[in-house]
Amino acid sequence: MTARIIPSREACVARDEADPLFGRRGLFDLPPGVIYLDGNSLGVLPRGVAERVGEAMRSEWGKGLISSWNSAGWIDLPALVGSRIAPMIGAAVDEVIAADSTSVNLFKLAAGAVRVQRPRRVILTEPRNFPTDLYILQGLSAWLGDDVELRVVERTTIADALDEDVALLVLTHVHYKTGAVHDMASLTGRAHEVGALALWDLSHSAGALAVDLNGAGADLAVGCGYKFLNGGPGAPAFLYVARRWQDRITTPLSGWMGHAAPFDFRDDYQPAAGMARTLCGTPPVLALSALDSALSVFEGVAMADLRIKSMALGDLFLDLVEARLSDAGFKIVCPRDARARGSQVSLAHPEGYAIIQALIERDVVGDFRAPDILRFGLTPLYVGFADIWDAVDRMAAVMETGFWREPRFQVRAAVT
Amino acid sequence: MTARIIPSREACVARDEADPLFGRRGLFDLPPGVIYLDGNSLGVLPRGVAERVGEAMRSEWGKGLISSWNSAGWIDLPALVGSRIAPMIGAAVDEVIAADSTSVNLFKLAAGAVRVQRPRRVILTEPRNFPTDLYILQGLSAWLGDDVELRVVERTTIADALDEDVALLVLTHVHYKTGAVHDMASLTGRAHEVGALALWDLSHSAGALAVDLNGAGADLAVGCGYKFLNGGPGAPAFLYVARRWQDRITTPLSGWMGHAAPFDFRDDYQPAAGMARTLCGTPPVLALSALDSALSVFEGVAMADLRIKSMALGDLFLDLVEARLSDAGFKIVCPRDARARGSQVSLAHPEGYAIIQALIERDVVGDFRAPDILRFGLTPLYVGFADIWDAVDRMAAVMETGFWREPRFQVRAAVT
Repeated sequence: MTARIIPSREACVARDEADPLFGRRGLFDLPPGVIYLDGNSLGVLPRGVAERVGEAMRSEWGKGLISSWNSAGWIDLPALVGSRIAPMIGAAVDEVIAADSTSVNLFKLAAGAVRVQRPRRVILTEPRNFPTDLYILQGLSAWLGDDVELRVVERTTIADALDEDVALLVLTHVHYKTGAVHDMASLTGRAHEVGALALWDLSHSAGALAVDLNGAGADLAVGCGYKFLNGGPGAPAFLYVARRWQDRITTPLSGWMGHAAPFDFRDDYQPAAGMARTLCGTPPVLALSALDSALSVFEGVAMADLRIKSMALGDLFLDLVEARLSDAGFKIVCPRDARARGSQVSLAHPEGYAIIQALIERDVVGDFRAPDILRFGLTPLYVGFADIWDAVDRMAAVMETGFWREPRFQVRAAVT
Repeated sequence: MTARIIPSREACVARDEADPLFGRRGLFDLPPGVIYLDGNSLGVLPRGVAERVGEAMRSEWGKGLISSWNSAGWIDLPALVGSRIAPMIGAAVDEVIAADSTSVNLFKLAAGAVRVQRPRRVILTEPRNFPTDLYILQGLSAWLGDDVELRVVERTTIADALDEDVALLVLTHVHYKTGAVHDMASLTGRAHEVGALALWDLSHSAGALAVDLNGAGADLAVGCGYKFLNGGPGAPAFLYVARRWQDRITTPLSGWMGHAAPFDFRDDYQPAAGMARTLCGTPPVLALSALDSALSVFEGVAMADLRIKSMALGDLFLDLVEARLSDAGFKIVCPRDARARGSQVSLAHPEGYAIIQALIERDVVGDFRAPDILRFGLTPLYVGFADIWDAVDRMAAVMETGFWREPRFQVRAAVT
């Protein structure tokens, strides 16, 4: 452990005051007094979202009724929202669309990719990934039988496991538990060398890291609308298909919104050009309106600046943990090097669940991931340096006083 | 054409006044002056929905943040909403769940059914059905290759086409264009005789007809949340799996919310018991809150009473059309017998598109379905007998004056 100069709270306050992004927290309805370090699970409500959705309900739906599909632009919302996410992840505006959930979108694109890659049949991924990614790939391979083989190899051996049997590499860019970041460009390049496609899950990256899909040569991607994009609980997810694949990849979920002419009501499916073919059912207008409005907080923000602040917040958190909690039984399980770490820090502690509950009661909201991980998400638009100082300060108090041992903190909730 | 006594407007007003359901229109935010006959495409905003979603945003999301998954019961919304729809469609409360779109749900259940029915491989359906149903079945059969054969036969020959090769019969209960109703009990019974399962799309039935899935012995069903259920544009859809099938049918869309223990974050998919296994991604909380609130308008309403009124509204509409529009070139293309007709009337006219546009400008909102169908949805909770009288009266005026010939009514909108 390197010796570092630990900043005072005053220094953190000064750093916030000098931070050009600090004013952005005014764009969020943060509950007073709460230090919210769970934006990697559910982002905070941006101001204006409730008004926008209220307008969508009372005026567009209530008054405009069916005509709002045209007059309020409902039909264009999936592409509009996609075009606003695109520059945040290094994609062209016509390479991203908003639809369905991350799980459903992963199914669509993985199914489409293995079909175009036949006779190759291996989907390569890693164990202990966010479970829905593994579950969806398992569902896909169980259904396609001999046409798909799911190959699950340890993170460190992925590059070596890429061979000419591999149809598709599926990885989560930032690991949900450890926050470890894959080298997207390098692994995508290696996949292409052996003729495989690369599909990236950006659920813990979009809106927090400077993702560069086009720069990395990525083929496909999916991601979540309700974490760092702040779209609200269960917000619509997004998909990316590199332009060179858009006319070649089709999805088995060929619903009417992906048809070339959905309102001709023809009997035969004909996929639309471009990203529209990845749509399936009728778009969720109210939820898309919320996400569309939420994305406004990113207007004029360079992802590179966001990333620099995110790395600094993480470094500060870990410096303070090392300085003030070295004897409390925590182990740092996220990368110590900020460049290899997503917008979160992760600690392991055998009593992690109770400690997280105790911290929540002290208005520091992180979350717990079984069996022993404490996660603290760092959303640069509404988390400041003094917040981090206060969070670790309260954590130190919770540990020093043994507050976390209170019996009520041991009771497990349905959703952790 | 049988001679009928055509009621006066006054008689229609009197009929509304005597109708115990008429007061329910006060539960909807109907735009003043508009006769809305498009509830089979997008239901009207029920009062209270905007407030409920506002509360879900400002309080549950804004203040409760991540804790609301437990404290506000977000995690239970799919099952809760399903349990409220269940009695409206003749299902037990644990046989229905709300999730995804109708298209995605159809894919899940059709895939699950053909798997459990192997080595049978035929999915039987009819042509000119609502296109997404055909498109999804086409996607499924293309994707599963030789494991599935899609057999599309004319409506009148379905019973005969059911043979021992058929794995699954997929039909829409009420035809979206003609409003013709299939005999669910009879066709399901015939399917069972040959060992096939029956999957019913209730998109144009739920909330308007007295559907009896259990009574009919139906195996599977899907349906729409934004038509007669008034859940808002792109509302979540629902699924039904008869209890006897729940532990045997699994879906390839095996996302984390369908796992037996989603918050254990295990690597291997293990389907949940009951309907939960049909869930896939994170539930769309805001949209589910809207649908949950919208369902309150049905509290204390017997579907049988709703159906009686719906049939009477349709009979009145057709009687008036026959009496007042016999020379205007319309052809009645929905069943004349109310028992064989869903909660809509359908007319064909070569200038149908322009006529619908002209009617909309006269505040009578129906819709057009290519190539020549005018559809008028009859939502018994907010449409009255005098509305029908006025609608046909304005239609007669539009035809007599040639108002529909105005050039602006010929311009096609993106969404029809």
